[in-house]
Amino acid sequence: MPTVDTDRRWVYAFEDAPADARALLGGKGAGLAAMTAAGLPVPPGFTITTEACVAYQDAGHHVPDGLWDQTETALAEVEAAAGRRFGDADDPLLLSVRSGAAVSMPGMMDTVLNLGLNDGTAAALARQTGDERFAYDAYRRFVAMFGEIVMGVEADRFERIVQRAKGQTEGGQDTDLSVDQLKEIVAQSKRVIAGQTRQHFPDDPREQLRQAVAAVFDSWDNDRAVHYRRVHNIPDDIGTGVTVQAMVFGNKGWDSGTGVAFTRDPSTGAKGLYGEYLLNAQGEDVVAGIRTPKPIAEMAGDLPETFDQFQALADQLEQTYGDVQDIEFTIEQGTLWLLQTRTAKRSGAAAVRIAVEMVGEGVIDERTAVGRVDPAALEALLHPAVNDDAEVELLAEGLPASPGAAQGRVAFTSDDAEARAAEGEPVVLVRQQTSPEDFHGMVAAVAVVTAEGGMTSHAAVVARGMGTPCVAGASSLRLDAAQGRLEAGGHTVLDGDWVTVDGATGRVLLGRVPTKDPELGDDFRTLMSWADDVRRLGVRANADTGEDAAKAREFGAEGIGLCRTEHMFFGDERLQPMREMILAEDAGAREAALRKLLPLQRRDFDALLRAMDGLPVTVRLLDPPLHEFLPDLLELTGRIAETKLALKQATTLEEMDRLLDESAASRALLRQVEKLHEENPMLGLRGCRLGMLYPEITQMQVRALFEAAADCVEDGIGVQPEVMIPLVSAAAEIETQAALVRETADAVLAERGVALDYLVGTMIELPRAALRAGDIARTAEFFSFGTNDLTQTTFGLSRDDAGRFLSAYVERGVLPADPFQTLDVEGVGELVRLGTDRGRAERPDLKVGVCGEHGGDPASVAFFHGVGLDYVSCSPFRVPVARLAAARATLGGDAS
Amino acid sequence: MPTVDTDRRWVYAFEDAPADARALLGGKGAGLAAMTAAGLPVPPGFTITTEACVAYQDAGHHVPDGLWDQTETALAEVEAAAGRRFGDADDPLLLSVRSGAAVSMPGMMDTVLNLGLNDGTAAALARQTGDERFAYDAYRRFVAMFGEIVMGVEADRFERIVQRAKGQTEGGQDTDLSVDQLKEIVAQSKRVIAGQTRQHFPDDPREQLRQAVAAVFDSWDNDRAVHYRRVHNIPDDIGTGVTVQAMVFGNKGWDSGTGVAFTRDPSTGAKGLYGEYLLNAQGEDVVAGIRTPKPIAEMAGDLPETFDQFQALADQLEQTYGDVQDIEFTIEQGTLWLLQTRTAKRSGAAAVRIAVEMVGEGVIDERTAVGRVDPAALEALLHPAVNDDAEVELLAEGLPASPGAAQGRVAFTSDDAEARAAEGEPVVLVRQQTSPEDFHGMVAAVAVVTAEGGMTSHAAVVARGMGTPCVAGASSLRLDAAQGRLEAGGHTVLDGDWVTVDGATGRVLLGRVPTKDPELGDDFRTLMSWADDVRRLGVRANADTGEDAAKAREFGAEGIGLCRTEHMFFGDERLQPMREMILAEDAGAREAALRKLLPLQRRDFDALLRAMDGLPVTVRLLDPPLHEFLPDLLELTGRIAETKLALKQATTLEEMDRLLDESAASRALLRQVEKLHEENPMLGLRGCRLGMLYPEITQMQVRALFEAAADCVEDGIGVQPEVMIPLVSAAAEIETQAALVRETADAVLAERGVALDYLVGTMIELPRAALRAGDIARTAEFFSFGTNDLTQTTFGLSRDDAGRFLSAYVERGVLPADPFQTLDVEGVGELVRLGTDRGRAERPDLKVGVCGEHGGDPASVAFFHGVGLDYVSCSPFRVPVARLAAARATLGGDAS
Repeated sequence: MPTVDTDRRWVYAFEDAPADARALLGGKGAGLAAMTAAGLPVPPGFTITTEACVAYQDAGHHVPDGLWDQTETALAEVEAAAGRRFGDADDPLLLSVRSGAAVSMPGMMDTVLNLGLNDGTAAALARQTGDERFAYDAYRRFVAMFGEIVMGVEADRFERIVQRAKGQTEGGQDTDLSVDQLKEIVAQSKRVIAGQTRQHFPDDPREQLRQAVAAVFDSWDNDRAVHYRRVHNIPDDIGTGVTVQAMVFGNKGWDSGTGVAFTRDPSTGAKGLYGEYLLNAQGEDVVAGIRTPKPIAEMAGDLPETFDQFQALADQLEQTYGDVQDIEFTIEQGTLWLLQTRTAKRSGAAAVRIAVEMVGEGVIDERTAVGRVDPAALEALLHPAVNDDAEVELLAEGLPASPGAAQGRVAFTSDDAEARAAEGEPVVLVRQQTSPEDFHGMVAAVAVVTAEGGMTSHAAVVARGMGTPCVAGASSLRLDAAQGRLEAGGHTVLDGDWVTVDGATGRVLLGRVPTKDPELGDDFRTLMSWADDVRRLGVRANADTGEDAAKAREFGAEGIGLCRTEHMFFGDERLQPMREMILAEDAGAREAALRKLLPLQRRDFDALLRAMDGLPVTVRLLDPPLHEFLPDLLELTGRIAETKLALKQATTLEEMDRLLDESAASRALLRQVEKLHEENPMLGLRGCRLGMLYPEITQMQVRALFEAAADCVEDGIGVQPEVMIPLVSAAAEIETQAALVRETADAVLAERGVALDYLVGTMIELPRAALRAGDIARTAEFFSFGTNDLTQTTFGLSRDDAGRFLSAYVERGVLPADPFQTLDVEGVGELVRLGTDRGRAERPDLKVGVCGEHGGDPASVAFFHGVGLDYVSCSPFRVPVARLAAARATLGGDAS
Repeated sequence: MPTVDTDRRWVYAFEDAPADARALLGGKGAGLAAMTAAGLPVPPGFTITTEACVAYQDAGHHVPDGLWDQTETALAEVEAAAGRRFGDADDPLLLSVRSGAAVSMPGMMDTVLNLGLNDGTAAALARQTGDERFAYDAYRRFVAMFGEIVMGVEADRFERIVQRAKGQTEGGQDTDLSVDQLKEIVAQSKRVIAGQTRQHFPDDPREQLRQAVAAVFDSWDNDRAVHYRRVHNIPDDIGTGVTVQAMVFGNKGWDSGTGVAFTRDPSTGAKGLYGEYLLNAQGEDVVAGIRTPKPIAEMAGDLPETFDQFQALADQLEQTYGDVQDIEFTIEQGTLWLLQTRTAKRSGAAAVRIAVEMVGEGVIDERTAVGRVDPAALEALLHPAVNDDAEVELLAEGLPASPGAAQGRVAFTSDDAEARAAEGEPVVLVRQQTSPEDFHGMVAAVAVVTAEGGMTSHAAVVARGMGTPCVAGASSLRLDAAQGRLEAGGHTVLDGDWVTVDGATGRVLLGRVPTKDPELGDDFRTLMSWADDVRRLGVRANADTGEDAAKAREFGAEGIGLCRTEHMFFGDERLQPMREMILAEDAGAREAALRKLLPLQRRDFDALLRAMDGLPVTVRLLDPPLHEFLPDLLELTGRIAETKLALKQATTLEEMDRLLDESAASRALLRQVEKLHEENPMLGLRGCRLGMLYPEITQMQVRALFEAAADCVEDGIGVQPEVMIPLVSAAAEIETQAALVRETADAVLAERGVALDYLVGTMIELPRAALRAGDIARTAEFFSFGTNDLTQTTFGLSRDDAGRFLSAYVERGVLPADPFQTLDVEGVGELVRLGTDRGRAERPDLKVGVCGEHGGDPASVAFFHGVGLDYVSCSPFRVPVARLAAARATLGGDAS
């Protein structure tokens, strides 16, 4: 057991607490101390420090020496201030005991109210207030709450006692219960406690206090709290404070009440008090939803003076804290008490409006406003959303893989999706998982759902790139594509049935649920312009088509950081020559096939360059393994088996001939597919290795790009092509490929008589490339960190396959976060830093960016800013997120 | 064009050359200078420096300024020493022009002899020597040689002219040609040159010299030379020297001659002159094999005095150079001239014998002896070899994947191989490629051949581990396993036919070719004991069975560095419970299956620990993805299709029932296989990720190991178990798994009342593990670098798939060597160094080893020595190689 310094101070009265002691006292304790210091009407109390909680945990759940003595001293002060004594048989002081960590953890920790009641004090309270009903109502609430939270009896057991009693009244409301009934409820509740726990409810108020404090400490480690910390990346060892405060009573008659209010609407951001209150009630009634509260505005009629006082206090609080407040208050017989105030949570839309309006009001400055909006919350603003008011019926839940909401009719194959979409039908593509062969189906679909795969599965990455809503890994879906049906959650959905996909929450809903379109108003544009003024990091977009590029530009992208040229080859007219190229027996046949692809590729580049007129466009040369363009091995094997079967049953010679031909063709294709088959395609013949073996491919792509660039220049379009060579691991690769790129590009420009500046660089996406960045930078004019692949190889972890264990790893804290979503700063991050430093040491003006999924993740953007990268590149829809995150990183704030 | 310092010295006379100027003058030039300095009979001459060659290359194939002037000066000195003048019409000096780089490159560069001959000097030579036949024979040789080497005409064209002339003589020998015939040959040769090259043969001797020097420089870049340098890792920018030397003539009658001799037999190492000579001939006759030379011993009868003189000179040379010499000599009318001497190449067996005997003779010391034997050459000594004298017929060639030779009858499936081997038949397993499912077949086979796969394919790695000869990637093999036949090189081999596999050279031979067994004599043991005295690095073996461990120990292994426990699960009795374990629906069913595996695994460990009595044994927990233990997806799909087909044709109800059952079982298995299918299994659910998800597996393995250890301790066996946790990427993984290992191990030891020291450590085989080595070393007591996987992830390169392009990469110099064979020091090596340093910074006594294939590669061993590792671990057969390489690394010598 660690030794404890008995002289250490574990307890601070609100009026004695040091300023800005959030870490020491927790958010609640520090807030109440600050409110007390500001002269606000706060019931007296004190806070037991977070250090005491940590000491308690470290000591194996024993409170540190000195704690109870200091508590007694502080309690005496509260008694003096309140004019009542704790446990007094005549005029008893009651206490609230609440938890409060440095980081807000709403709902995660537990609270005990009305502590100090027993048969004696309850009777005294009844005498003092002249309101027996109130006293025994408080008593029965306290026994239930204490029994549940401190002694571990299910709340339901106490609720049933109350329900039975209410059933015997006429009105059926809490307020209809008689004093005798309340007393009987207390007695029954105590019996339930004794029966369930084999321990008696403690009548001694000080024993109640000690047990309650220990229960708050214990609750730091309850499952909900641990889970919340895990999800929100809150450390486990910061502990919670315990705030002990004199109770005030909102249930002392119809001039009493309790409520919760925001100084502005947390959903829309509209200025003005927003909230709810209840007359003659305790705060728990509101929180637990036992009684239906009234809108705060109605308080102006019920208690006009108190309302005016509250309004003034709310304004003062917003000014004091410089941000929207979420205030808990109680009115005790006409006297207003503030129980808690904290910075209000708000929707993305509200955050934007509030930040901009507060600048207008002179409350905060523009830089502060930029820091007020969570970049992650911004993303949801850019997509349609399921209407909050709509009634929904859940079909299945998965990962929120690409935000936005859409309604459509289910299709089970990409061919079907494409065909039906061509006829104008909104289609939701539902697949076990997607592969590059599904690209045309995904393009055609209004939303995509997969039963397997994580946040960085093929479906998720492609959908995010296109801004198409996607729910991935909806594992309860049972697909039977052959029969055109799926089952989940007891429902059966047939081919063509309507579903609604909510990509922001990961829900697949039955039928057509109304959605609402995003409104990017003036506030949004104003905030983004402030962010742009602040940030140092450039923001580009990953886009493969002119359409995507235009959208990216609309969202403020300053260039294309990654054009994945392979996506261009999946259309019907392209896949055929692509396959010819792959199946070519020699360089001649390969070149013939490439000649067919050249004009198509040139057209793609032309659209992209025109959309980005005046801005740089980074084009990555062909990257994936070639077999991605061929039919699946299993599918082909199946097809051959089917032909064989059909052959056995064929009745005419013609049919047999046709089937034999078909079989031969399939077998030839199968041989090639087998030849190209790789055990680990991620680590196989791909990236620049293709260009090294088949320089014709590099030449064709570069020719197409520079022919398009020359066309653009002739039309007065500003072009800045940057050719990016993927998957380099050795300097000789970039040397060879860069020389080929320059030779081809210069030849085209000479043919066309066009002068043009361009860059040749590389992706740094393998550990060896980061380590050898110095060698590579001798040739490469820019680096773009491909953090997806770099994460895969640094961890030895395929993002296609990681789903089976990665979530368990994150849940158990083996990894702090999914490294494919938030950059692993300690491992992958070291390679990014080291690669950047070594590259710049060799070439001081090396341009360095990042084009993995992390480019749109706020926490990762903050890291990239810190490392000194020049830009990040992300999906078009995440460009505003990245702009804001980059600005916040410059401001030095936490990016989350 | 680079500027050239015209004052620079480009030319050195033999007698003026600086000592030890190998880099400047090339091996040949430095050797001749040294011989001249030692007073040996060397014809006068001079050397043009390697720097001149580099300057020539840098200047775009222009000789540097000053070179010809300096050449003239040196030539004048040679004329003075020889007493003849170059181009003289009366008594002409003739020259040889040879290349010679700093590193020996035999046969790679070109030589011109008899330079200076034209119609005039030939006539003068005839007059001077009184031997017209000799003069015109030299002339016709010179024209042909010059025409070929300097002017680029195929040798064949000149040879045909000579053949035609010889056909007109009676004897048909060179010596039967008449003077007129020789003159006609010269004339015809000149006409061929003019016709082929559109240039005249240069009659001016100085023009001949200039062209010849330039041709030597040019030949530095010919394909053969570039290829040789690539294969032998010789830099491209060191250049060759050109040695110009007065000709002496071995064809001046029967008191003249020429030859090549070794001071000891380069094949056996036996002491005594070994070589060949020819009377009345030029050296080229011997080298080119135009006439069949006589054994050198016969010279004692032909020219007794000269032979004695040569014998004395040979002894002097061996003493001077301290090593066996390879000497070219010429006798001109009774006078012995030495043309060249160099350190002799030798076989592994000879190297060992010579090194040990020279120590005995006091010529060298033991440390020098250790440095004299190439570790790589040693490996071949440890295996049977194809008898050199045997006539062989080649079936196919592939990679020399595992050395040794064996004869056996072809089997096309592992089941077949196993069944036939059980009946005592020697079987050669021939597969397209192998997978873990072939393990039993590989165990049963005397040799393994695959049509696909590289030096580190499954077949290669497993075969090397077992010491079974293997030829991998014999791509000309066309297998038709279903028909039981293969075709290659125009031959058809049927199931059961005899073949001989030569794993040392990568050849597959038809029929039964005689082999000879290795003889590890006293010399070998003596040398290894010297090596052990010298080396600092420990040497362990990778072994999975008691048998392998015993063999490793016999070869001097000081422990087991890697026991791959998964190999233990591929036997018939193990695969079944292993599959039950994998297919288990819950932990209970999984534990039941594991209980069946426990005694089997314990038995394996018991054998291993007993074999290594007193030495440490590192056991790696289960590493591969689980689907490796399940049937192949394609095979299963095929089986289902076949059942379906059979069902259509079934005629009885019983048959249909049986087929339906079969189909259902296959489909159930298929679902599980599909569920476990991974896109990139190398980066999937394997290594410690298995133990994290299924702690029962870790527990079973640890229990089996420690139960076996306890048994051994009770029997007085010394055990030092080291439990190794694979594929760690985050510190939390090793923390969790190490805790589980210790808990389980300590429980077993407590049950058994046995005390035992053991270590828990990890493989460092992912870049992140190397980067986070500090964190990991807080828990891990030892590191073992898994450089195979570390190479895969650092390069993003799967060794299963790399075969398709890696050889092209190495051939083109993109990579200096196959990184799976020789450690990539620049990239992977940095991670090894960094991981070692960070680990030791956290835990100074951290034991660090390596257990990848690189542990048996001499160059890599030298690197590991330099980084300060504690040990390397390799296949049993490579243990002596590693011991020697480790010793050489300590001596600071080049390890290759």
